[in-house]
Amino acid sequence: MRRKSFEAMECPIARSLERVGEWWSILILRDALSGITRFDAFEASLKIAPNMLTRRLSALVEDGLLERRLYSERPKRYEYILTERGRDFLPVVLALVAFGNRQFASESECLKVVDLETGRTIDPVVVDRSTGEVLTGPRFALISEPGATPALRERYVKLRDGEMASKASESIP
Amino acid sequence: MRRKSFEAMECPIARSLERVGEWWSILILRDALSGITRFDAFEASLKIAPNMLTRRLSALVEDGLLERRLYSERPKRYEYILTERGRDFLPVVLALVAFGNRQFASESECLKVVDLETGRTIDPVVVDRSTGEVLTGPRFALISEPGATPALRERYVKLRDGEMASKASESIP
Repeated sequence: MRRKSFEAMECPIARSLERVGEWWSILILRDALSGITRFDAFEASLKIAPNMLTRRLSALVEDGLLERRLYSERPKRYEYILTERGRDFLPVVLALVAFGNRQFASESECLKVVDLETGRTIDPVVVDRSTGEVLTGPRFALISEPGATPALRERYVKLRDGEMASKASESIP
Repeated sequence: MRRKSFEAMECPIARSLERVGEWWSILILRDALSGITRFDAFEASLKIAPNMLTRRLSALVEDGLLERRLYSERPKRYEYILTERGRDFLPVVLALVAFGNRQFASESECLKVVDLETGRTIDPVVVDRSTGEVLTGPRFALISEPGATPALRERYVKLRDGEMASKASESIP
């Protein structure tokens, strides 16, 4: 895995990807969010080489997404439990499920999201918390917070006022 | 990048990650969703080696997330425009921004999502489309669609009825 530049690392997306951006890590989190906790179960689900699984689990523990807990003294066996931070990754996994089902349905569409309490099927959608408006289209853009470096702030202001605006008018039919 | 097993590939998350799971691809899509279209601009934003950028852009074109368009005849220059499928990745990027801002705020919190029409700040949240309920906690699980292979279906039914249920009751305070 190549290191990102400092500027890229300042971005919350880059920050998140640094922790979970590797292909296997996201699938490990998917399984953990489905209730898997034990090494053998992750291995069976992912068909991943044990050394690779060990490495990815350790990285997720180090980054605070999983917690390692002893569940057997003899022999010593550990399980991997989602931390609060790890559970907070659920919306990202749900957004990925929805994207995959929308875009690659003919190839897969094997998973759906359900409410275990009611059995109801859930259609995950990303909205604005205060208005409930569905966030699609070129109307919504990323811009920098005051805390950002001048370089990053400038970049996003430029995007918003320049390229982004022309893009937006192009894309609206 | 290691190949996934057939079973893993049937899952819509694995399907999506196969296209965009590589670290750089997600950052390229982030930039494309912010209005960047030209090779030089991606290169400057990502500080990525040109050969790596070429490879990632080509893969995204091949997978139908970007479209390559000639914008200059002499010299021949191309730009990369988001397809409908590519624009549909926005919710995943927004879920990642929100996760990064929540979890790594002290390190970054440099980006916010805004509505370019009103200037209002958006708080992206993943909800159920029909009820508007915020999707967090162990209540929500992934289970297989009827189209899934028996192996995958069995795996998720087991999770739901077994490990998942005990997990859920453990986690509810």
